[in-house]
Amino acid sequence: MGFPKEYQFLSELGLGPRNPGCYANGTWRGDGPVVGSYNPPTTIIAEVVEASIQDYEDGMQACTEAAKIWMQRGEIVRQIGDALRTKLQQLGRLVSLEMGKILAEGIGEVQEIIDMCDYVVGLSRQLNGSIIPSERPNHMMMEVGCVESPWNCGVITAFNFPCAVLGWNACVALVCGNCVVWAPTTPLVTIATTEIIAQVLEKNNLPGAIFTSFCGGSEIGEAIARDKRIPLVSFTGSTKVGLMVQQTVNQRFGKCLLELSGNNAIIVMDDADIQLAVRSVLFAAVGTAGQRCTTCRRLLLHESIYQVFLDQLTAVYKQVKIGDPLEKGTLMGPLHTAASKQHFASSIEVIKSQLLSNRDINRGEDLVGGAAVNSDGNYVQPTIVEISSSGAGRLRYNWYRPRYSPRKPELIFQWIGPHGSDCGIVNVNIPTNGAEIGGAFGGEKATGGGREAGSDSWKQYMRRSTCTINYGKELPLAQGINFG
Amino acid sequence: MGFPKEYQFLSELGLGPRNPGCYANGTWRGDGPVVGSYNPPTTIIAEVVEASIQDYEDGMQACTEAAKIWMQRGEIVRQIGDALRTKLQQLGRLVSLEMGKILAEGIGEVQEIIDMCDYVVGLSRQLNGSIIPSERPNHMMMEVGCVESPWNCGVITAFNFPCAVLGWNACVALVCGNCVVWAPTTPLVTIATTEIIAQVLEKNNLPGAIFTSFCGGSEIGEAIARDKRIPLVSFTGSTKVGLMVQQTVNQRFGKCLLELSGNNAIIVMDDADIQLAVRSVLFAAVGTAGQRCTTCRRLLLHESIYQVFLDQLTAVYKQVKIGDPLEKGTLMGPLHTAASKQHFASSIEVIKSQLLSNRDINRGEDLVGGAAVNSDGNYVQPTIVEISSSGAGRLRYNWYRPRYSPRKPELIFQWIGPHGSDCGIVNVNIPTNGAEIGGAFGGEKATGGGREAGSDSWKQYMRRSTCTINYGKELPLAQGINFG
Amino acid sequence: MGFPKEYQFLSELGLGPRNPGCYANGTWRGDGPVVGSYNPPTTIIAEVVEASIQDYEDGMQACTEAAKIWMQRGEIVRQIGDALRTKLQQLGRLVSLEMGKILAEGIGEVQEIIDMCDYVVGLSRQLNGSIIPSERPNHMMMEVGCVESPWNCGVITAFNFPCAVLGWNACVALVCGNCVVWAPTTPLVTIATTEIIAQVLEKNNLPGAIFTSFCGGSEIGEAIARDKRIPLVSFTGSTKVGLMVQQTVNQRFGKCLLELSGNNAIIVMDDADIQLAVRSVLFAAVGTAGQRCTTCRRLLLHESIYQVFLDQLTAVYKQVKIGDPLEKGTLMGPLHTAASKQHFASSIEVIKSQLLSNRDINRGEDLVGGAAVNSDGNYVQPTIVEISSSGAGRLRYNWYRPRYSPRKPELIFQWIGPHGSDCGIVNVNIPTNGAEIGGAFGGEKATGGGREAGSDSWKQYMRRSTCTINYGKELPLAQGINFG
Amino acid sequence: MGFPKEYQFLSELGLGPRNPGCYANGTWRGDGPVVGSYNPPTTIIAEVVEASIQDYEDGMQACTEAAKIWMQRGEIVRQIGDALRTKLQQLGRLVSLEMGKILAEGIGEVQEIIDMCDYVVGLSRQLNGSIIPSERPNHMMMEVGCVESPWNCGVITAFNFPCAVLGWNACVALVCGNCVVWAPTTPLVTIATTEIIAQVLEKNNLPGAIFTSFCGGSEIGEAIARDKRIPLVSFTGSTKVGLMVQQTVNQRFGKCLLELSGNNAIIVMDDADIQLAVRSVLFAAVGTAGQRCTTCRRLLLHESIYQVFLDQLTAVYKQVKIGDPLEKGTLMGPLHTAASKQHFASSIEVIKSQLLSNRDINRGEDLVGGAAVNSDGNYVQPTIVEISSSGAGRLRYNWYRPRYSPRKPELIFQWIGPHGSDCGIVNVNIPTNGAEIGGAFGGEKATGGGREAGSDSWKQYMRRSTCTINYGKELPLAQGINFG
Repeated sequence: MGFPKEYQFLSELGLGPRNPGCYANGTWRGDGPVVGSYNPPTTIIAEVVEASIQDYEDGMQACTEAAKIWMQRGEIVRQIGDALRTKLQQLGRLVSLEMGKILAEGIGEVQEIIDMCDYVVGLSRQLNGSIIPSERPNHMMMEVGCVESPWNCGVITAFNFPCAVLGWNACVALVCGNCVVWAPTTPLVTIATTEIIAQVLEKNNLPGAIFTSFCGGSEIGEAIARDKRIPLVSFTGSTKVGLMVQQTVNQRFGKCLLELSGNNAIIVMDDADIQLAVRSVLFAAVGTAGQRCTTCRRLLLHESIYQVFLDQLTAVYKQVKIGDPLEKGTLMGPLHTAASKQHFASSIEVIKSQLLSNRDINRGEDLVGGAAVNSDGNYVQPTIVEISSSGAGRLRYNWYRPRYSPRKPELIFQWIGPHGSDCGIVNVNIPTNGAEIGGAFGGEKATGGGREAGSDSWKQYMRRSTCTINYGKELPLAQGINFG
Repeated sequence: MGFPKEYQFLSELGLGPRNPGCYANGTWRGDGPVVGSYNPPTTIIAEVVEASIQDYEDGMQACTEAAKIWMQRGEIVRQIGDALRTKLQQLGRLVSLEMGKILAEGIGEVQEIIDMCDYVVGLSRQLNGSIIPSERPNHMMMEVGCVESPWNCGVITAFNFPCAVLGWNACVALVCGNCVVWAPTTPLVTIATTEIIAQVLEKNNLPGAIFTSFCGGSEIGEAIARDKRIPLVSFTGSTKVGLMVQQTVNQRFGKCLLELSGNNAIIVMDDADIQLAVRSVLFAAVGTAGQRCTTCRRLLLHESIYQVFLDQLTAVYKQVKIGDPLEKGTLMGPLHTAASKQHFASSIEVIKSQLLSNRDINRGEDLVGGAAVNSDGNYVQPTIVEISSSGAGRLRYNWYRPRYSPRKPELIFQWIGPHGSDCGIVNVNIPTNGAEIGGAFGGEKATGGGREAGSDSWKQYMRRSTCTINYGKELPLAQGINFG
Repeated sequence: MGFPKEYQFLSELGLGPRNPGCYANGTWRGDGPVVGSYNPPTTIIAEVVEASIQDYEDGMQACTEAAKIWMQRGEIVRQIGDALRTKLQQLGRLVSLEMGKILAEGIGEVQEIIDMCDYVVGLSRQLNGSIIPSERPNHMMMEVGCVESPWNCGVITAFNFPCAVLGWNACVALVCGNCVVWAPTTPLVTIATTEIIAQVLEKNNLPGAIFTSFCGGSEIGEAIARDKRIPLVSFTGSTKVGLMVQQTVNQRFGKCLLELSGNNAIIVMDDADIQLAVRSVLFAAVGTAGQRCTTCRRLLLHESIYQVFLDQLTAVYKQVKIGDPLEKGTLMGPLHTAASKQHFASSIEVIKSQLLSNRDINRGEDLVGGAAVNSDGNYVQPTIVEISSSGAGRLRYNWYRPRYSPRKPELIFQWIGPHGSDCGIVNVNIPTNGAEIGGAFGGEKATGGGREAGSDSWKQYMRRSTCTINYGKELPLAQGINFG
Repeated sequence: MGFPKEYQFLSELGLGPRNPGCYANGTWRGDGPVVGSYNPPTTIIAEVVEASIQDYEDGMQACTEAAKIWMQRGEIVRQIGDALRTKLQQLGRLVSLEMGKILAEGIGEVQEIIDMCDYVVGLSRQLNGSIIPSERPNHMMMEVGCVESPWNCGVITAFNFPCAVLGWNACVALVCGNCVVWAPTTPLVTIATTEIIAQVLEKNNLPGAIFTSFCGGSEIGEAIARDKRIPLVSFTGSTKVGLMVQQTVNQRFGKCLLELSGNNAIIVMDDADIQLAVRSVLFAAVGTAGQRCTTCRRLLLHESIYQVFLDQLTAVYKQVKIGDPLEKGTLMGPLHTAASKQHFASSIEVIKSQLLSNRDINRGEDLVGGAAVNSDGNYVQPTIVEISSSGAGRLRYNWYRPRYSPRKPELIFQWIGPHGSDCGIVNVNIPTNGAEIGGAFGGEKATGGGREAGSDSWKQYMRRSTCTINYGKELPLAQGINFG
């Protein structure tokens, strides 16, 4: 028995109705509980047999062995990129199906991992160290970025980017010489992606253990956090869990790369191009049904454009087509879980009661959307809430990643300068989301301070040593010290 | 009443018999307990009135205000370097007196902070960000390293480097635009150093609060760790305390720069220049009476040179002159505290009992030194203990920063390569200690992973943002996504 | 009428018996003389109709127009790399056929241009400029590397690397936003390579004029040197012609990138691995029949290994299989032209007469090889000549790119240090030839000082500006000057 | 007999009424003709005995010997900076006296060389090479920037910056390990500056030949251009002479760093801050009496602000105080030579005749200033000429370094982007002159393409090698080639 017709494309990704969820030591296995993966929220897509702790231990041993022979090989990652390219449509479709984002975004996400592959092929020839002048004659001082052997990189990903975040980490990690251990939230995308990578490794006669995946529950994540064989753990998820992971990893002297929650704002100034700003907010707030860590959650509007902006945004919101993410024209799919839908509903209730008790704002126009959509799926309306300025203060939204859209150069340069934004990502006339891979991605403060994808993020996937070689016959000391 | 004759030079550093230990908001004060600073261990040098928590709070408010106007100013740090240069002899002498290291090392340490000043003046014109090509037309993508305003950098230093570690951090922090908050262990060096810096600030009509010092107990360190006004805390000290500081700072989304304990080894291979290697070990193990974090604690000797090396080292050890660190010819001064002396004695007892029960090694020649010196001061003998190879295993000295001294190029390059050392500092034919400021200083694993002084250490004293500016009229999305 | 059977593969490259040699404005044309391309030296492969000056002018106009719209596009170069990959065998075979190098080297050369494509795709996201701290408040100082519009890059290539040198330049130039103008020496390889690139451009609806090729004589090279529309000319060839090109280009304020002749030496020290060194010399001296600019032309042997090294090398030289470069087992193909063969013969005559008059060396064993091979092709023997040390002086071979192979670390580090080699490429235990693309390729002094392929060579394909923006309301001057 | 009272400060710089003009091999000498140095144009300040060719040859031999022992020493340049600092007022005064620029500019120029000294002290620890990943196992690939020994850097300076340009070059050259050979135009500033540097060298027991100065005529410049002992020649002067120097240096395979003429424009857009722009033009056009290479020579005014801008500028021009550059309040001193004054007068005549024949512009208001000032000195009026747009075309001022002052961000970013300015220095809301040392200084096209002072200019003062070390036992070839 196979898939219904609309799921036939899953076969092209190597998926069946029930799938072992653990790729360990180069073979598919799974000794843990059987769980279903759902088209949010209710339709089951396929079943997955999760990894047990024994699966984990076996996989890690093989992975650690493989790390001893794995070197930086851009050529392998180039082939992975090509293999993903041939499955772009199918894998993008599966992302939409399992995660719930619209097809354009699902395909865009797979494109992002392909872009990462292409990018790191070149990067693999530029993982440069430095030669630094020594003050001592006949000494050579270097700063080398090397991967100690063995080095495994753990990647714990969240539901909202089932494969792009893996790509940011794994592509860089692989060309830096890391083996990769993946603990995902969305099993089917993981199995399909892993299978594509596994085939490339196999074709090149390399141990499959170089890339190891464990679909499983929180005990897998905890095992990774505690595992001394994994010097670097990249974690994407909530601030609360991220801090716990960090402490566990730090206690064993490992390093953490955190991508946690965000509370992003868009500031619209009086000189903004309103139309462009409205479109930016639409994508920033409604894209991925508001479930990105870069989703815009706050609008700070200059009073002179407040009403016109809000009117235009409200008009646009009302036209947003909500529904099946695979259907053409849909802009907003379901929330990923029923719990999210419930959380949405209760938050709206809290807001409504706050609005009622809040005498200083205009009633009636203070809430756009706010209702769950009556359907089987986890569908809700895109929502705007107006709050008083005192309310803004009370909510203690003082975190990170605000952006704005003025056209005055003095504002732009102040914004990106020492007295401007203190966020990790600062945009002007651009939505809060949709980063390019060439820059470093990450947020400050409660977002965890991690940096992934481009720029010099690769340095984190290596140990780094200051090496000095004395090739002379004397023993000069720094700072001109004489001793003995 | 002033100082006895041999302490007269302290007056030239602005010190008196009793000194307020807190430089806050540009004035000297101190509302806490009075403590004595001792020439280790017993002779009191002078008294210090420590900072109270109220002193701390007042100082931090002023410091945070000052940070709003402090910009990167290489010129000020240049003047600080020049001011220190005129007091090199006196301040170096005080370092020896209060800490206990020999005069050459005391002066060398002050020279290091002067070198840091000279270095960062040039660095202040090279704190570069990047402009990264954008895949979107009419977009400019940048990575800027900016100091958000206000930014204070906390520097908690240890007894063994009373001012060099301050120099590594403060010099870089100041040119990056940080205000500096210093919590030291050695009050007199701190007061003298702060006074030199304070005079430079005053001469330039800058608020003294730019550089704030709090001599005090552990409650000051704890206050810094918890203080949200201090985004970056640089801590030097034990691994145990360092991990606690890190967790406290991380919980409030601050960043930590750790320089913790070390367990450094020197490996001597069969092709080594024995004489050079013996001299290296002498400086590495005996320098600063073995109290550096980079002190060599372990020797791994190739069997073919084992005995000849040990014979030469033993001969050299027996000639080490122990005594007053200010006296000419002394190579080894006292330990810093009486507790250290006691710890030394009890460790020797443990070792002796282990040796007795350890049948597989040669008795009689297995312990060189090992006795405390009978005197008032905290003097002990430089000590060599031979242990069995199984013993080496038992002690679990498996950490970091080993170095060796071969002359075979294949060994050297393997050593600094992916299958070589996993330490933060890797030397060849050089002692474990005595780093140059141009390279990044720091160790991996239990040493905390921090990097200070040269290379790109400065990046940590700034926030870092990926900024993208859309200066066109369109709203292209990354990964070619179309939305709406 | 088509090709004989052994040339059938040329059809797969789009070649026919007579081919237009000019790809200008996106179409194949040729209004100049008809020339034959020969399998060195006598067998005609195919005919080419060369570019006339009118072809050149038409092509350059279109190319300059195309440059106005061509932006940095890694994606296009990625596709070019993939297209070349599918033709690797055929194009490598054609390189061997037309140039004369053995098949492994022909394929290796095509692999190199493919590697360059893969490499620059990543590089295209890292063509970074800098943001430099300004000493003036409210100023932003940047160093940007931009391509002014339009920018064309001229690439004049030599016979010995018919396509790799094009790859070094064109791949980087294209991702930097340059249009490329190619003037080659080997027409068939150029036509086949251009056709592959042209198809990619066409598939992407881009103007073919982005990549323009002119097979032609010296008047095409001269036109490029004089052409103000070509800000950068990369020239590979003789030192004599290179200096002339440089002067012509400089006079019009253009820039030159020169890769000229080399006179490379291998130094073998007393501690060398003789077998490895002999193999290195074999590849360095005999590879490409000694026609690389990196070919080893001189051996400097330590006296203690002189005879044993020479004996082994002589033995190896005698086993070198000379013949058809496409045949399996051949190590040495023909010289590229009959003139080269004649030059070889006359050089040997000069050497023989010098040897006769040179009384201080051992007669009889002083010349290995030295004869032309009796056949239709341009085949000659690999040759070793011993000269007296005074003779070495007389020959004034004091230029560049020596390398050696010791095992003593002090020698290695001196060699690559300030008192060591003054060459552009310095190798240890590696032949003089066979560079990796990740490093910058080029030689000092008479080799022209150019740097191509990896490292920061890309910076030459851009203009570079120091941009400072004052976004404040004041007009502070540098160096604190007050004016008016 | 000494100096008149107003020249007494010259004695503090070590100058007398007649001075040997050559500092060679650590001693002052001069065997050439005696020339006078004039306070422009007529008052003699002091006499100088120029260098003969024999002086040159003796000096170069000593310099080349000294280069063999001179290493990078930031400490020496730090002391030079301090020594200059103590003579800032006197040397700045001499610059004004001998060159003719106003005192604020004279002191600013000396400050610039002091800034350079401070800057390169830090830079000396950051002259970094790279370690680049190798595709071959057991290979280490590096890019090192080393100074071959011996290396001398020739610096030929122009009258308009008697010491700042020396500072840009010499400071960097010295920390890179070059000896410096200076051929100036203004002998007294050179003698005084050299004496300051010589004393520092002497105090440190270093050979004076490390810094060698030759006051002399064009034969000294020609000797430098031809001298193989000088791998790098930095030349500041006219485009015509610069191209000749470049060809001579290139012929001997040396390198040239050119800073030639400029024809700089300021573009004022309709949204400009007029007051700020007028002040910018004043400093840019009138500063140094218009004799900087960065002097603004052209104004391109948006028609909407044309008249108001011109009115304000004319008003400001009329208030410019012309006269003794040492006198307080003077904004414009004399031209440097009588020939310049004559050239000014004849140019004005040509312009007047052109204006008469040019019917399409408004007569009467088309020339502001334009007269020589009736006095003994070379004083002329600051001058504005209006030309027709067709005239602008005819003058073919199409070179380089334009800048403008808009407030629209899209204009700013276009201006510094690929379709914007093609100049080496691009400013916004900043005069054309007055560069900071942290950026690279230099112009494109007829300005010669050189880059001096900050950024990565230091790389030019070194040779650069791609070094690869094979430390394994195999001989893998790049591109996977198998040979033999």
